[in-house]
Amino acid sequence: MTLHSPQNDAPRPRVVIIGGGFGGLNAAQTLRDAPVDITLLDRTNHHLFQPLLYQAATATLASSDITAPIRGVLRRQKNVTVLMGEATGIDVARKAIQVKGLPELEYDYLIVAAGARHSYFGHPEWEALAPGLKSIDDALEIRRRFLTAFELAEESTDEEEQRSLMTFVIIGGGPTGVELAGIMIEIARQALREDFRRIDTAQTRIVLLEGGPHILPAFPEALSRKARKDLEEFGVEVRTKELVTRIEPDAVWVGEERIATRTVFWAAGNAASPLTKSLGAPLDKAGRVEVNADLSVPGHPEIFAIGDMALVLQRGKPVPGVAQGAIQGGQLAAENIRRSVAGQPRVPFRYFDKGNLATIGRDHGIADLRGLHLSGRLGWWLWLLVHILFLIGFRNRASVLLQWAISYLTYQRSSRLISHLDPKDGKISS
Amino acid sequence: MTLHSPQNDAPRPRVVIIGGGFGGLNAAQTLRDAPVDITLLDRTNHHLFQPLLYQAATATLASSDITAPIRGVLRRQKNVTVLMGEATGIDVARKAIQVKGLPELEYDYLIVAAGARHSYFGHPEWEALAPGLKSIDDALEIRRRFLTAFELAEESTDEEEQRSLMTFVIIGGGPTGVELAGIMIEIARQALREDFRRIDTAQTRIVLLEGGPHILPAFPEALSRKARKDLEEFGVEVRTKELVTRIEPDAVWVGEERIATRTVFWAAGNAASPLTKSLGAPLDKAGRVEVNADLSVPGHPEIFAIGDMALVLQRGKPVPGVAQGAIQGGQLAAENIRRSVAGQPRVPFRYFDKGNLATIGRDHGIADLRGLHLSGRLGWWLWLLVHILFLIGFRNRASVLLQWAISYLTYQRSSRLISHLDPKDGKISS
Repeated sequence: MTLHSPQNDAPRPRVVIIGGGFGGLNAAQTLRDAPVDITLLDRTNHHLFQPLLYQAATATLASSDITAPIRGVLRRQKNVTVLMGEATGIDVARKAIQVKGLPELEYDYLIVAAGARHSYFGHPEWEALAPGLKSIDDALEIRRRFLTAFELAEESTDEEEQRSLMTFVIIGGGPTGVELAGIMIEIARQALREDFRRIDTAQTRIVLLEGGPHILPAFPEALSRKARKDLEEFGVEVRTKELVTRIEPDAVWVGEERIATRTVFWAAGNAASPLTKSLGAPLDKAGRVEVNADLSVPGHPEIFAIGDMALVLQRGKPVPGVAQGAIQGGQLAAENIRRSVAGQPRVPFRYFDKGNLATIGRDHGIADLRGLHLSGRLGWWLWLLVHILFLIGFRNRASVLLQWAISYLTYQRSSRLISHLDPKDGKISS
Repeated sequence: MTLHSPQNDAPRPRVVIIGGGFGGLNAAQTLRDAPVDITLLDRTNHHLFQPLLYQAATATLASSDITAPIRGVLRRQKNVTVLMGEATGIDVARKAIQVKGLPELEYDYLIVAAGARHSYFGHPEWEALAPGLKSIDDALEIRRRFLTAFELAEESTDEEEQRSLMTFVIIGGGPTGVELAGIMIEIARQALREDFRRIDTAQTRIVLLEGGPHILPAFPEALSRKARKDLEEFGVEVRTKELVTRIEPDAVWVGEERIATRTVFWAAGNAASPLTKSLGAPLDKAGRVEVNADLSVPGHPEIFAIGDMALVLQRGKPVPGVAQGAIQGGQLAAENIRRSVAGQPRVPFRYFDKGNLATIGRDHGIADLRGLHLSGRLGWWLWLLVHILFLIGFRNRASVLLQWAISYLTYQRSSRLISHLDPKDGKISS
């Protein structure tokens, strides 16, 4: 293990990275040849390719298609030790991280890249009724609720109950909400059509609620309008400027209107991991650290916050909380650590926006590539290509390609597996 | 839905099938053109290809590779309604089945094919300490414990604790125990070798305990001895005539000997689903119904028991509880229902044993094909071929072939995903 050691015997700086997502993983890889000892801490054992999570949640892909074991990805990089564990706090004065069930981890440099969770806008009680989509377990829970609703509808003898079971409300019209809505309507109307005897899954209602004036607000308005038109042609009810006021086990309220539904999904708000509170730095209202230009935390040049945990302003606008923001942030934070260790000056973050992609449903996608706008089939194929290229690992790429090809050709979704049955009580409903 | 109706308007006989495993699914398919209305009830939404379950438990395959949604498989067979629910009892006098959370299901003919669970030989308290392998949720639990043990060993600073975490005890030397042992030693020594920094996974101990004189007792002794030799060459400690007397959270006792281990898997005993108790018929000590030659339950010509729930004697020997026994039983029970409905005499069950296959590990398998014995590489390839052929669905076949090819070529196991983290408490240990 002396491969990268400096000539003298001084101990190598200890770099701790919290989080094995896009930001953390890229930070670790950028430090491949740096004379540092890295510990990467994640509460799971896998890197998750979040842009495809909605496909695992809707039974199009298997969970293992969009995850890669972090140890496996980094196994040849000998200056990294991977630990599975949950950081519960950071003592910035003592430069030590509290980890649940493990001894403290000390650091010389720290990169916090623990991402975000859902934010329920002051209604934490909504979480149980309207799960969001951030982790594999979230995806399996959404898949379970989505598929189980049809099972219960088939078993029901009450028409009103069946209608309510076959109504799905998705709250939030960003990429996650739009992609969920587009794929759910296709599954209901195509893949499941022949599966049931007592219900007609073509009658499924998918309601997409967005508080703002447009869905996909990060896109130019023309593309956003195109996306809405596509969704509506598929059969999704898109409603903008609609704020949810109440969620109940059998209904969602929009102002005075009650939508009877048994299944609600949350794709609306994000809040940075509460770890940011340990940093003693100013936070924005989503809990993100307002970092310096070099991505370090104000007052702590040895700590960097990146990805969904950081608010980075670029020409007055925040860098969006997307994969490329986290990747570039991870690379820059790592580069700045390398520079500090080598005694070189740090460089500021310059976000390069490669463009923005979203799928609406089969053969329909939109793309905004630095001013070049694509939609329809071309946007869709570009989306597929980019997502295959960015997936980690040959096995995942090959497997995702295979599943997509089969889904595309047969309209079937063969990962319609409901797991997480509780073997103790055989519970199948939510 | 009048396609298969008889000319008169008499109601069609109602056939209920409990269980969507090999027996139940084949029974439903055999009744494809029969003038009956079939309800197939299963507590899950999927058919499980149990012979490959150990590969899902060891991260070689994704759960969805070895499952097929029952509705999907039967979607074109219009005389079948699939219901997801758990049968809790059978009222044979009233010909009605109690289903948890649903109205009773009435039947004219009933096929019980609910399979078996583990039997802990009068020690139900061992179940929590030594999970068995029957369902997808079992497989994910075994995968979680197997992979988490290495995570905890990497985090431990106590050598004795590390040794105990890296010791895995498998109880039962039948096909499940042998296949788990063979694949676990390969994963520990090959796939995980480069993943850790503080432990050497090549030091992993896999102990296979069998109470009888030979592992794989269903095979001829020469093949069983060959299998043992192969396992030992891979590094598995095979111990026969060893009875477990106690299981504790950190040890397994074999007589007076204590084996320090934190992870124990159960592959020893089976007991038929407790549903057999509702039938009022004689049961053997494994809880199986001693059925008539036509597979009907004594005293109830309208009820059939098949697969792991039935004890069928053939030339004085019980038909083994394997996939082909269940498949042939399901087909014959269905054929006998078809005959009764058509006013034809029933036929007795004749089990045709096509042979017996097991894998020991990479490039090593054994096969007993009606007297023709194969072992080594030839047995292994035959095993692969047969399992691909018998998998249900093109998508599963293609996906399993792909995963196997990649695992074989790279020695990696890319499904090393630990799911079932409890998002509430972030618990990672068992």
